[in-house]
Amino acid sequence: MLPWKPARIGQSVHDLDTPALVLRLDAFERNLERMTRAVSASGMRLRPHAKSHKCPAIAHRQIQSGAVGICCQKVSEAAVFAASGVRDILITNQIVGKEKLARLAETAGKARIGVLVDHPAHVAALIETAKERDVRLDVYVEVDVGGGRCGVAPRDAGALAQRIADSGVLRFAGLHCYHGTAQHVRRSGDRAAAIRDASGQALLARTDVESRGMSVEIVTGAGTGTFVHERDSGIYNELQPGSYIFMDRDYGDNEYGDGDVRFEHALFVLATVTSRPAPGRAVIDAGLKASSMDSGMPGIWRAKGMRYLSASDEHGVLALEPGIAADIGDRLALVPGHCDPTVNLYDHLICVLDDVVQDVWPIEARGALR
Amino acid sequence: MLPWKPARIGQSVHDLDTPALVLRLDAFERNLERMTRAVSASGMRLRPHAKSHKCPAIAHRQIQSGAVGICCQKVSEAAVFAASGVRDILITNQIVGKEKLARLAETAGKARIGVLVDHPAHVAALIETAKERDVRLDVYVEVDVGGGRCGVAPRDAGALAQRIADSGVLRFAGLHCYHGTAQHVRRSGDRAAAIRDASGQALLARTDVESRGMSVEIVTGAGTGTFVHERDSGIYNELQPGSYIFMDRDYGDNEYGDGDVRFEHALFVLATVTSRPAPGRAVIDAGLKASSMDSGMPGIWRAKGMRYLSASDEHGVLALEPGIAADIGDRLALVPGHCDPTVNLYDHLICVLDDVVQDVWPIEARGALR
Repeated sequence: MLPWKPARIGQSVHDLDTPALVLRLDAFERNLERMTRAVSASGMRLRPHAKSHKCPAIAHRQIQSGAVGICCQKVSEAAVFAASGVRDILITNQIVGKEKLARLAETAGKARIGVLVDHPAHVAALIETAKERDVRLDVYVEVDVGGGRCGVAPRDAGALAQRIADSGVLRFAGLHCYHGTAQHVRRSGDRAAAIRDASGQALLARTDVESRGMSVEIVTGAGTGTFVHERDSGIYNELQPGSYIFMDRDYGDNEYGDGDVRFEHALFVLATVTSRPAPGRAVIDAGLKASSMDSGMPGIWRAKGMRYLSASDEHGVLALEPGIAADIGDRLALVPGHCDPTVNLYDHLICVLDDVVQDVWPIEARGALR
Repeated sequence: MLPWKPARIGQSVHDLDTPALVLRLDAFERNLERMTRAVSASGMRLRPHAKSHKCPAIAHRQIQSGAVGICCQKVSEAAVFAASGVRDILITNQIVGKEKLARLAETAGKARIGVLVDHPAHVAALIETAKERDVRLDVYVEVDVGGGRCGVAPRDAGALAQRIADSGVLRFAGLHCYHGTAQHVRRSGDRAAAIRDASGQALLARTDVESRGMSVEIVTGAGTGTFVHERDSGIYNELQPGSYIFMDRDYGDNEYGDGDVRFEHALFVLATVTSRPAPGRAVIDAGLKASSMDSGMPGIWRAKGMRYLSASDEHGVLALEPGIAADIGDRLALVPGHCDPTVNLYDHLICVLDDVVQDVWPIEARGALR
């Protein structure tokens, strides 16, 4: 952790020491509003994914803007958000292991908690936990609708739902139908096609559950890249986008069509030029411990003739076109390649408006991996 | 941060909740010893790079084993280590910016501090800082010996050293000649050749400085992949390896020849199988927020017939060969692709011996980016 305060309220963004993780509040608020507008008329439930921000201040702002609650990916994240007063959390993951199940039960004493299953072993472990600890859990069957990661085949959804419903102690809450790999398909039409397929799979799963006489209250899924299609699918009724509040370079690289909703870059990593060792090369103080490189190099905000070429732990190498100025001490704003793991590198989000620090929000669930 | 304790002393490693960052103390101690042995007979100074571990407990153990001090990459890291009682720190980086220079001066009041320059602007800023704050700084000229990142050409080293020496307030301490890209060149002979070249460049730089009547006290550089060559070069007299205490998959993939020193994997990310959605596929709870993917996917320790195929934020997908068992709840130890950014994802290092937790070391400089 930084051994001193990351910023002072009222400080100019131009005086911030770097690297610094900065949220432009105006763009952030417009992103929130744009999502609310895109979703509200449809009657869809919005349950934003908090794995993107890990920040209670943001979760509460999302709930004020109409979200029914949040998603988390980990029990320890959920514990942080529950402690901050969030009352409705869906953990979009399978929870395995004795200690983790005990923590899940603890957290379920503080907030309404949902979890996923995609195997009878998960159901059995949750039944044991619910009985031992006397807690209520909403259990969703995860369906593989095309992402190829976790989830049962649609034809197996009914049997698993039945085990939940028959348990007497767990509540079957619905189907989790998230298509992760569709989010960054570049062409707008291809994303629409992927979610048409996913919606078909989700419908098969719902039909399979209903054929056993159970009803499916919630069909939940979607991300920032595709949520308009799940919204309009006629089968989903809850959306889980996360990155829309920040946007990142990777989402920015998607092509956007007529029906798509585009969000603004609101999250930046401020960096400083620290070395100019050769005419076409500048080195900055933000490497792969300052901005996650898993989805490619960061963009450089409103800079022409330069690109982020390569990263080592604490250095970023920029390639400069001839005649492009970059002096030692110059400052740049990077647009992270992928917002979620970038935020997870910082303890604080420095909130600015008109280049002045307004607030510093702790990223309380940073490093909450379990 | 994890909202509960990461481990209990005396706990079995098999009961640890996952993901968990685990240090096998026996392998760690053997790595320390192997390095001490490889270096001590040569009379070389060992100054291990603390950017790999960010952990004061490890720095003090390295100093007990004969290191003259440590390297850091950032002022904020140096501040954490200085506060823990480390008395000699070389920051292997250019320090730029008013606030950072003020923090540098503060830290130089607590420990002997060295810094790098590769431009007259750096020297000018350090002179101003040293005068204003009345601190002593050891200043090293960084030379580009083949890495192509920062550093002056060898023929420009003397002029820059002169500016330092002429300042009256800064101390010219030597040359920083680190060849980063040589560390992971796979073939042993190619690494040797790269450091032969680098040593030639370092010698040119030293000669250039000496031709101006100055002496070069320290020529410092080297990493875990090449340090035997710098040790035997006749020009370097200080070595900065960092990863040797942990090793990682990427260093493990290097080929090792006769004169090379090979270290053991001592750092692991424990993970749990959370989903078995398809015959050839298992999903674990450790994705790219649990193990850095910048140098490729993690290895799987002592597991046959499975490999880590792809990572999303909190999921790792394993490919299983036919007949390979991996049940929900099974546990694996990952060997991180790259140790430095992986350690930077955790607040604690769980130290084990014979599968029992002996200690929990805070990674105090995690996130110390500035």
